[in-house]
Amino acid sequence: MADAVLFEFLHTEMVAELWAHDPDPGPGDNIWRWLLPLESWGQNMNLSVLESVGFRVGQALGERLPREMLAFREELDVLKFLCKDLWLAIFQKQMDSLRTNHQGTYVLQDNSFPLLLPMAAGLQYLEEAPKFLAFTCGLLRGALCTLGIESVVTASVAALPGCKFQVVIQNS
Amino acid sequence: MADAVLFEFLHTEMVAELWAHDPDPGPGDNIWRWLLPLESWGQNMNLSVLESVGFRVGQALGERLPREMLAFREELDVLKFLCKDLWLAIFQKQMDSLRTNHQGTYVLQDNSFPLLLPMAAGLQYLEEAPKFLAFTCGLLRGALCTLGIESVVTASVAALPGCKFQVVIQNS
Repeated sequence: MADAVLFEFLHTEMVAELWAHDPDPGPGDNIWRWLLPLESWGQNMNLSVLESVGFRVGQALGERLPREMLAFREELDVLKFLCKDLWLAIFQKQMDSLRTNHQGTYVLQDNSFPLLLPMAAGLQYLEEAPKFLAFTCGLLRGALCTLGIESVVTASVAALPGCKFQVVIQNS
Repeated sequence: MADAVLFEFLHTEMVAELWAHDPDPGPGDNIWRWLLPLESWGQNMNLSVLESVGFRVGQALGERLPREMLAFREELDVLKFLCKDLWLAIFQKQMDSLRTNHQGTYVLQDNSFPLLLPMAAGLQYLEEAPKFLAFTCGLLRGALCTLGIESVVTASVAALPGCKFQVVIQNS
């Protein structure tokens, strides 16, 4: 009854609680802010908090992976794993597509992202979208980190409830 | 892989994040504080935040119940439902015991409460326990509220990771 939706409810209420105590419009508050790199979210404390909570959850999930999964040879295999297995475990569905420029940039597209579903569709809600993506950006970054890959993860929305996560691998 | 633990990881990190930004010792900070009624938690903003997030998640879970469950005749049946079905859905286990004085007070005992498991055992950790119980107190209160029962829910710990939730029904 509850287990599949419990995570989504808790995520929704965590977001609501953060913004209830601190509406946090910030100087860069416009509907395009969420297209900016994550670093510029620094102005928005709440987004940073969500991203860092997501990062630690992603790390913890990564640490529970079977050991053989920690020995991926190819970067692309890791990304495929996130799109299939990790997404399925968290959201009961797979990512809809994965593209790459073969130079360390990956675009993961979910045409119906579960954490955006509670939002009504419509352009006027686009500016609310970053709240519901920051945690998952962190989660992807955290899982990748446990798998030995440093990255920057950002998200964008063109048409709710679809979204794209862009993963840029940081060469060490 | 991840779905069963995702909620627990997110809960743990939400607690950690709250205390990282606000250690919030408060004037009543001693290991007995968590034995006090919930109202006196008001001094501790973080506990109140967790309780209210839990309340709204509990309400949301309650709203997803099949309609026939909303027509419980007896208060005791509602409490039994929480101890069996709700606990199973959230924590993959049932509550260990349910006792009542038949005058509106119920004691729900979990001998190995999953959200306390990450904590090491030992008396010295008892003072950390309230952080990991406040959300669930709210969740029980929220689910009861959706089922038409106003209550005050508090928690206490005698031996980690066991705990007791006391539900006192508020007669309207």
